[in-house]
This record gives sequence, structure tokens and C-alpha cells, in this order.
Amino acid sequence: MENIVFTTDVDKTLAGLLQDVGQERLFVVADKNTVVFCDKLLENVDWTPLNMAVVDCGEEHKSLESVAGIWSLLSRRGARRSSVLLCVGGGTVTDMGGFAAATFKRGMRCINIPTTLLAQVDASVGGKTGFNFRGLKNEIGVFAEPEQVIISPRFLSSLPREQFLSGLAEMLKHGLLSDEEHLERVMAHVNGPVESADFLRLVRDSVSVKERIVRQDPREKGARKALNFGHTIGHAIESLSLSSDCPLLHGEAVALGIRAELYLSVRKKGFPSSCYGRIRDFVCQYYPVRSFESQVDALLELMMHDKKNEQAGINFTLLEEVGKFSINNYCTPEEIKEALLGN
Amino acid sequence: MENIVFTTDVDKTLAGLLQDVGQERLFVVADKNTVVFCDKLLENVDWTPLNMAVVDCGEEHKSLESVAGIWSLLSRRGARRSSVLLCVGGGTVTDMGGFAAATFKRGMRCINIPTTLLAQVDASVGGKTGFNFRGLKNEIGVFAEPEQVIISPRFLSSLPREQFLSGLAEMLKHGLLSDEEHLERVMAHVNGPVESADFLRLVRDSVSVKERIVRQDPREKGARKALNFGHTIGHAIESLSLSSDCPLLHGEAVALGIRAELYLSVRKKGFPSSCYGRIRDFVCQYYPVRSFESQVDALLELMMHDKKNEQAGINFTLLEEVGKFSINNYCTPEEIKEALLGN
Repeated sequence: MENIVFTTDVDKTLAGLLQDVGQERLFVVADKNTVVFCDKLLENVDWTPLNMAVVDCGEEHKSLESVAGIWSLLSRRGARRSSVLLCVGGGTVTDMGGFAAATFKRGMRCINIPTTLLAQVDASVGGKTGFNFRGLKNEIGVFAEPEQVIISPRFLSSLPREQFLSGLAEMLKHGLLSDEEHLERVMAHVNGPVESADFLRLVRDSVSVKERIVRQDPREKGARKALNFGHTIGHAIESLSLSSDCPLLHGEAVALGIRAELYLSVRKKGFPSSCYGRIRDFVCQYYPVRSFESQVDALLELMMHDKKNEQAGINFTLLEEVGKFSINNYCTPEEIKEALLGN
Repeated sequence: MENIVFTTDVDKTLAGLLQDVGQERLFVVADKNTVVFCDKLLENVDWTPLNMAVVDCGEEHKSLESVAGIWSLLSRRGARRSSVLLCVGGGTVTDMGGFAAATFKRGMRCINIPTTLLAQVDASVGGKTGFNFRGLKNEIGVFAEPEQVIISPRFLSSLPREQFLSGLAEMLKHGLLSDEEHLERVMAHVNGPVESADFLRLVRDSVSVKERIVRQDPREKGARKALNFGHTIGHAIESLSLSSDCPLLHGEAVALGIRAELYLSVRKKGFPSSCYGRIRDFVCQYYPVRSFESQVDALLELMMHDKKNEQAGINFTLLEEVGKFSINNYCTPEEIKEALLGN
């Protein structure tokens, strides 16, 4: 995690990193919510930024058009490989900004400041960048690590409750992939407080669970698939919800995916049903649980498109117990239906 | 060069590589000239390809629109990371196809069959992929090596004379970066014959000059800049010519760039003027030499935009003698003007 700084003093850290970067060599990308943070973030730098791209919020704007807008700014204002793209925002901003930086002149410098809990614990590690294409999530992208990520609790206190819970779902996954104690700490923090030193430590520990797994397998050939736990079903639920009247946040869909994939883990891998029961109750208490009765076929169709599928059938990461995962489990449509409807 | 095969038997080599790839997992990208080669190339495979993208020829179609067309085909027809994108064509096709493959689902398999001499000796090595953006060459791209490159003389006999000479200009550069003997062999082959075993060996030796340099410095931080010799001025000449009535081919512009940058090498680095004279005469005899009287300012402006420029001033790779290069030489506008007009 040598490229991640956890700090309560984000302005000073940033000013230090930008010491050798002139005004004309800094490019900022933010969204409409996070652009308000930028003035304060840069107040320890003795010039104001000239080059700023503001992208629209939301998954539907994580698009080629938005990426092309960032490329345009960089190109128009004469960015160089040694210029810095500073991305301030949630995963949408850091994923698109990271992709734009990795591909502009075949790679310029990039610093990410994730402002949502989800982006801090998930998008900050592992170098996944990209955008949605033809309705498919992250269909286009590259693996590229930013030069630096700064994680600060500053942004979390103003985060809406559902955004906080969305991030917590990925932390729940990291707990399940790590150990009982870590899992308990995550569930115990469901009501914050987010600005405590204790919570910043929990965020750091959650990030390090992901980092340990990514380091073993940066290109997702094997062990990294552990991180897909909850996501095969979760992604499908998220995609389908995006075309409905009440779209779910990424982590909300992942929480429902975790519930269903833990059910499969109990059935196929002997995951302890008592622990499954605790997680199921937690998800039902804090996340918007839905009935999938009328949507099962559409969900199965979406799962077939998942980029992690390397052969016919739907590929799952399942758990044998907390901290012990098993990759490349193929489940039948009937088993998946039961997990969606029967639990 | 373990990922490059030099062969007169391209069909069989390709069939071997595609043994484990089913009909639905092969995607072909070609341009309007090279699509006619594809049937024969695949005649040793026992099925016909289903998924083919044909891009328009020429530098002006090396665009985001063309790349998005390839992404669309891949996405629509359900390509996976384990699917293969086979790129058959000149550098435009292999650069765009390589970029599309490197970014589709964050990286799918890619095999290149370069069909022009230029693409065989230049684009085949070094993993540069990408497309032009806002009139700037290769403004967007990534470094990504294809899984395999197949180089065959089959395509060269039907290549127009000016396309052959365009490729030979890069070979001339490799000769200058290597040794006198190699340089002489290149000039001796200006009239082919291209289907001889001797010429295939020369192509292989030319590729290995580039490969040796790239291996030392894949991300172009130092030694790789040697390969920019002739290209700082060459790229500017090419860009400007594209908006004129008589656009130059890449290698034609590079030949003019080599002439001008050798002149700078004589002036600033003591490159032997007798050797400069031989190269200048060779370029004047075989390449479309122009007067740059009215274009000097526009050319200087374009050089300032070159992505290899890391600071103010224009950065050149120059030669001290054949086989001995010097990177990061900054030349003044006056010196560059003299090289363009005075030699």
C-alpha cells in the first residue's frame, strides 16, 4: 500500500505531492458534488488550478463521452506525460480519470482522492480503471495504478447514509474474506462515527485486505477472483436496477449479491449456516431488499455477460468459511434461482 | 522477440495459434485493402470467421470512432477476455486493434499480422497502441504487447513502391542506430527483391535493432528515445502534410526528418559529414523532398506538442556516429530552422 496515504490532513499531504508541479501542469477532474471540495483541498498550494473538468454524476455518465471530455481538456491545454491529473470524487470519477490518465499520451501522472467510502475501500486499490459501454459495466478499461491515493475521513461526514452503507457492503465482503474479528468490527460500525480514529483504522485494515489479495494476482487470473465474491449476482442486480425506476447503489446491489452468494456457499461449500444467518439478517436490516420473482431470467442473462466468465456457465467465488474462499465454482441456473428467491 | 514469428508459411503458423480458439471466439479486424487477405490467411483453419470489423484506410481514420466500432463488435458479439482479436493490416489497423484489445474488458488476447513493411519493422515491436485525437498523432493509447506477431514476406510483393520506401525509412533509422554494415545492407535493398530469404533476414535484423532498444526501456523514460531519431521533425512534417493537398506517408516524412536531424547531429554532435552526405543523397534520390520555406513556424509549433517533450524546448535524439546515439538534446528554433532550410 505504499501508494496510499491515510490522513486527516489531506490539504497538506496534497500540497506536498504537488510541490514540483506548476499551475499549468495540474489538471483536476471532479463531479458536480465534489467540485466544491477542490478549493479547500488546494488551499495550501500557492496558486489556483487553471484546468478543471467537471463530469456529470452517476453511473449513466461513466461513459465514453465523459472520458473523451477529459481527454479533450488535457489535449487542448497541452498536458504532458509529466503533468498530473488529480481525480476528486467517487469511483465514477477515479475510474474514468484513472483511465483517461493511463491512456493520455500512453500514460501521464495521476493522483486520486476518493471522496466516498465505497471509492476509499474499493476503487482506491487494484488499479481497475474504465467506463461503461453499451450498457455493460466497466466494459472498457485498463489496469493502471495511480501514483498516489489519499484517503481522508474529511469527506465521509457529509456522505448520505445510503452512500455510507454502500461502501460498508464492500467492507463486509472484505471482512468475510479476512477473519471473524474484522467482520465483527465492520458490522459494529454500521452507525459510524466516521470521523473517529477508530473508523479510519478500520478503513485502512479493510483496504489492506483487498491489497493483499490484489498483490498476489494483479491481472485477475486466479486469487483476485476472491474479490468477486458477492459481485456475480450483485453486478447483475445493479445493472438491471439501473434500467428501473429505483436504481440501486453499487454497494446496495453487492449486499444483496453477498446474501445470495453466501446462500450458494452454504449449499455447495458447507459455509456455516449460523454465520450466513447473521449476515442475511444484517443485510435485511440495513439494505433495500427486493423480490426478484419477475426478474430471474433477466438477471441470469446479465450474469452470462460478466467479463470474468471464461467459459460456458456462470462462474462464482464462494466461501467455505470466513477467510477461506474458493474460486471458479460453476453454478447452474436452477441453483442461482434458488439463491435469489429461496433465501 | 519471443512473441514474433518470421515465416513464409503464415497460414500454417496462424492455424497453429488458433487451434484452441473456437469460431465464436475469433474476432478479425482489417482495413478495406487487407480484408481480401483474410480468407486465404484462414484457409488452414477449418471454419470461417464470423466476427469481422473492417476499418477505413488511412491516418484520418485512425480515430476514436474507428476504435469504438471495434469495441462495439466485440461487445455485441460477446467477446471474452480469452477471445482473440486478430489484426490484419498496416500500422493503423494494428495500433487501433491493439488498443481495442488491450482495453476491452481490461485486456483480451491479440495477434497481429502486419501487412506493410512499415508495420513489420516498426509497429510490430514495442507495444505502442493507440489512435489520433484532435489532430494529434497517437494522442491516446497504451503500451501493450500483443500475444503474437506474425511477419511474412507474402504481403510485400503487392505493396505499392511508395509504401515499400516508407517502411525502408524506418529500416534506415535502425541501420543508423546499429552499425555501418547493417546500414549498407538497408540501402543496398532499396530495389528489393522483397520475397527473397535475404530480405526476410534483413527485416528480422531490423526488427531486432528496435527490440534490443525497447527491451532496455519499455516505457520510454530513457534509451527508447533513441528510436525517436528522425521523428521529432518527421512527425511535424507528417502532421502538417496531412492537412495539405499532397499528404506524405509516415516513412516519407521520417526520411525527411532523418535528413534534418542528421544535419543537427553533424552540427551539434560531430556526426561524420561524409556519412551525412550519403544519407542525404539517398533520401533525395528516393523520397519526395520538399521546400519548407513557408512552413517553418507551423512545423515548430507542432514540435512543441510532441508527447516526448517533458519541458520547454524541443527535445531531440541525435547521433554522434553510426550506432552511437545521444538522447535529450534541446535545440533552439534557429537551429531547427537551419536544419529544415539549409541542408
